[in-house]
Amino acid sequence: MPAMVAVDAMGGDHAPEAPVRGAVEAARTMGIPVCLVGDGEKIRAVMDAMPDGAGRDARDLVTVRHASEVVAGDDQPVAAIRRKKDSSMAVALAMVRDGEASAVVSAGNTGALMAGGVLILGRVEGVDRPALSTILPTENGKGVLMLDVGANVDSKPEHLVQFAVMGSVYASRVLGWKPVSVALLNIGSEQGKGCETVREAFTRLRARGDFAGNVEAKDVLSGGVNVVVCDGFAGNVFLKTLEGAAEMIFKSLKKEIGKGYLSKLGALMLKPAFAGLKARLDYSEYGGAPLLGLKKACIKCHGRSGPRAIMNGCRVAFQYAGSGAIAFLEEELRPSSIPEGGS
Amino acid sequence: MPAMVAVDAMGGDHAPEAPVRGAVEAARTMGIPVCLVGDGEKIRAVMDAMPDGAGRDARDLVTVRHASEVVAGDDQPVAAIRRKKDSSMAVALAMVRDGEASAVVSAGNTGALMAGGVLILGRVEGVDRPALSTILPTENGKGVLMLDVGANVDSKPEHLVQFAVMGSVYASRVLGWKPVSVALLNIGSEQGKGCETVREAFTRLRARGDFAGNVEAKDVLSGGVNVVVCDGFAGNVFLKTLEGAAEMIFKSLKKEIGKGYLSKLGALMLKPAFAGLKARLDYSEYGGAPLLGLKKACIKCHGRSGPRAIMNGCRVAFQYAGSGAIAFLEEELRPSSIPEGGS
Repeated sequence: MPAMVAVDAMGGDHAPEAPVRGAVEAARTMGIPVCLVGDGEKIRAVMDAMPDGAGRDARDLVTVRHASEVVAGDDQPVAAIRRKKDSSMAVALAMVRDGEASAVVSAGNTGALMAGGVLILGRVEGVDRPALSTILPTENGKGVLMLDVGANVDSKPEHLVQFAVMGSVYASRVLGWKPVSVALLNIGSEQGKGCETVREAFTRLRARGDFAGNVEAKDVLSGGVNVVVCDGFAGNVFLKTLEGAAEMIFKSLKKEIGKGYLSKLGALMLKPAFAGLKARLDYSEYGGAPLLGLKKACIKCHGRSGPRAIMNGCRVAFQYAGSGAIAFLEEELRPSSIPEGGS
Repeated sequence: MPAMVAVDAMGGDHAPEAPVRGAVEAARTMGIPVCLVGDGEKIRAVMDAMPDGAGRDARDLVTVRHASEVVAGDDQPVAAIRRKKDSSMAVALAMVRDGEASAVVSAGNTGALMAGGVLILGRVEGVDRPALSTILPTENGKGVLMLDVGANVDSKPEHLVQFAVMGSVYASRVLGWKPVSVALLNIGSEQGKGCETVREAFTRLRARGDFAGNVEAKDVLSGGVNVVVCDGFAGNVFLKTLEGAAEMIFKSLKKEIGKGYLSKLGALMLKPAFAGLKARLDYSEYGGAPLLGLKKACIKCHGRSGPRAIMNGCRVAFQYAGSGAIAFLEEELRPSSIPEGGS
């Protein structure tokens, strides 16, 4: 299997510019072979318009595969994958299934990518439900991998246990985080807290060496643990609250700053500090997050990804495909290796 | 029944100073009759030490009821209420049950107050589970009432429906918010999104005139709706994420500001803006949140409450007790008045 990354050139808010430029940069600066999948004419136009002839320079490492359709952001996921067989997303996934590429990167419709991942790439044996993950910046700068953040609701304890194994393997084998500590998102840190599902998952995870117990939502970003496991409902609430809170704080601060001459001047002087903070909160450094539990490496970049985020997505996809993590996950999820519950 | 507010003088991080001073101020400036419940000697010492003789001035409106025990922050809730019969919290609740006071205010152990509320005051008929609520500031300055934020996990659809009715009645009858719009916290705004419980609750709430559908966590603080209903697990994740996010953003900004001379100067100039933002986010203006679904008015103030928050808590408790909201809630929850499901 060639170690090539198939990039959905038509997915995301800034397609095709961002995926094309990001993939070209990954090829040029990191030597990663990429295949841009989508409208061939548009892809080549973006490549040709890149400054300093970057697009032309990268031609050896960048191939283009034409696909005539596009999965839209508001398409119904399963229907989109089933009906738009020649969409950039479906074609990129099929290339990986058929061994023409080893990993896929997309900033397109998240639900469709998950549906396509399951339908076209398939689930790892032992995984009932693949999970959507995300990597968030932490206070100590190390980052935390959180899953599931919205692919599944009404998760059962065994699903949370599988998420824990999936997250642990990815964190250690692909991200290189050591030691890995996995915690359950809960409403208190003591054992026995929370809803039935989480309490049961706690009991089943106790025997694992990397299990660190419960973590409260307020402590997720402090970096005390590096993998946080939750149902997709709670994960979505967590992520969206974070988004809303950051937006509200910045907006309110802006409003307060606008009130006086001195504070406007102060804000000007603080510009580098705000920029530094923004960079710390910037997801683009992490290069997207994996759809975990699929048979092949599949990286979802944020819909708002620019070239830099896509480039990092290609890097992560390349590392993921070459890491052997998926084979390791299969091994870990063999029935004999999952504890069925503790005392 | 005398319209008196029983204040747990021993509850909260800053007891007895904050509850005593806050209650005295409520009596002095708002004319609210209060009874301070707790260690009589300590209470009088705080009153006597108040500047300008405020404590002495308020003696006509402030009575003291001695209680020899204190519910600690880490006491097991039900056990604390059952065993510490002479605790300030249990005595304050019993005063309301016995008609000696019309409402209770406490900044103490939340779980114990909820347990005491159920055991001593009792639930309104038609309420399976009382809920803990909170009032959050919104971008438009209006505030949003959220429930449940941690009293119940594994809520069933009928519980969410009851929360919706409880929240709506409190928002309109006590807070005076009009019109009231009630939404379910969900992972998407469209009908059909989310977990089974929330989907079922949606169907049952559709017939209500004040039902506004689903709201995503990121939009809760924008102020589009003024009552948000959720299971206590999701509500806790929401609140704690907010707390963690605000902490992380301020800490990071501080770190960035510390990096340069100009930005330090800028931060100095921005001080009023930061103070303004802090005031906007300050919970103390809202004066605590009600434990909804109990037969009597019971207001929980934040554990970190200062005198101002307690004073506002007394105001809210007084209004709540005098509003007739609880009788109205009983009426609303009569079996005939709750829709059993929609088409």
